[in-house]
Amino acid sequence: MLTPADARAQYRAGLVAPTSGHAPGFTQANLVVLPRDWAYDMLLFGQRNPKPVPLLDVTDAGSTSTTLAPGADLRTDLPQYRVWRDGELVDEPAEVVDLWRDDLVSFLIGCSFSFERALLDAGVPVRNIEQGRNVSMYRTNRECRPAGRLSGPLVVSMRPIPASLVATAVQVTVRMPRVHGAPVHVGSPEALGIVDNAQPDFGDPVEAEPGDVPVYWACGVTPQAALIASRPPFAITHAPGHMFVTDVPDAVYREP
Amino acid sequence: MLTPADARAQYRAGLVAPTSGHAPGFTQANLVVLPRDWAYDMLLFGQRNPKPVPLLDVTDAGSTSTTLAPGADLRTDLPQYRVWRDGELVDEPAEVVDLWRDDLVSFLIGCSFSFERALLDAGVPVRNIEQGRNVSMYRTNRECRPAGRLSGPLVVSMRPIPASLVATAVQVTVRMPRVHGAPVHVGSPEALGIVDNAQPDFGDPVEAEPGDVPVYWACGVTPQAALIASRPPFAITHAPGHMFVTDVPDAVYREP
Repeated sequence: MLTPADARAQYRAGLVAPTSGHAPGFTQANLVVLPRDWAYDMLLFGQRNPKPVPLLDVTDAGSTSTTLAPGADLRTDLPQYRVWRDGELVDEPAEVVDLWRDDLVSFLIGCSFSFERALLDAGVPVRNIEQGRNVSMYRTNRECRPAGRLSGPLVVSMRPIPASLVATAVQVTVRMPRVHGAPVHVGSPEALGIVDNAQPDFGDPVEAEPGDVPVYWACGVTPQAALIASRPPFAITHAPGHMFVTDVPDAVYREP
Repeated sequence: MLTPADARAQYRAGLVAPTSGHAPGFTQANLVVLPRDWAYDMLLFGQRNPKPVPLLDVTDAGSTSTTLAPGADLRTDLPQYRVWRDGELVDEPAEVVDLWRDDLVSFLIGCSFSFERALLDAGVPVRNIEQGRNVSMYRTNRECRPAGRLSGPLVVSMRPIPASLVATAVQVTVRMPRVHGAPVHVGSPEALGIVDNAQPDFGDPVEAEPGDVPVYWACGVTPQAALIASRPPFAITHAPGHMFVTDVPDAVYREP
């Protein structure tokens, strides 16, 4: 079983792979890096939209480390990054040492991987894990509350849940508000503007079993949708599924 | 029974009085107003110190309204304000219309009044209410995590709780993280650097009953201590005990 430090050392040494299942029991985080000039807008966007953007840590400008994993280097210790210029994806490198600047602020954002483990512990099947696929994610017709120059749609992840276990899934995730919390929507994809659950905007299609209901959670890809919509001159994020593995046990974000 | 809008109308018309017990059942908030140039530091200070500084809303620069009470005017609808220049208290006016500027950002911060009601509902006596006094508050020897130019000590409020009900008090308040959450410390004032519970730094002395244990919660006066320590050129806050009465029911901040 890899420790978080072992996993990060492998990515730093060049391993490019999705992080799902690596260092189990430890929180993984979404990464958004923006110039200081845009950091206030991002910090306010997180404050105003805590379900899709639960901020676990915000670094000082120029810093390459975070309190979530004191020995880690944010420029090298994720398996893959995305580089954005004027809202366009321009590169997906394995490290960003050469791109780092003294004015960059890093935002570490909670990830639903933490509550998938809690769902399994409670006996709720997680179809994307069963099927070995990335979770399905969709842009919705709901707008986030804007913050300065940042605005964009709410992005949700969807998991098909047996109808008899939807209430359990709500009970489990409502106790984990730092990793997206309770679902924002149950059933009725068309009310979110989702035409076809089988055609996600991000991630993979996931098949529902008979009797499953689609359950939608706020998703940490929401800030990437805001970058695309709002076009800051420069940004770095993690590549989808290639998260930052922290030293923080999942249980820290599970409320009593 | 006053509604929140009734209460705010009375303050706007000139009533200067502590807000404890006004519009019961509705959340009251601490107010900190800073120039946009200092707003990033304050927003980051709240993100990094969520127990003493739970941010319920942050306004756009220049705005005089908040989502917590859409009809209210933040310049007039608190009973009393404090005006700070270079970290020094210079005035305590009943409204701040003439001082308002286009670059001012308002921070509305959760207040322990919300959990005092929940404690009473759970059968836990609240001595400061029984004794008709303001709660006792103390500067501690614990430093908040700094954010840019803002730093300062953690300020705590103290309530004497019967030893047999300390666990209940923890259970009740842990479910209300947006209004300071679980205690940061139980018993042993000297470990917090508090020499004498009878000599608070803010508020009134509150007498313990035989068998009571002092229980300490993170306090919304913490940002005022940071203003004093960090000396921004200009700031406005509420006067202690003279809070902003919102339209948000307390139950909204009580987690399941």
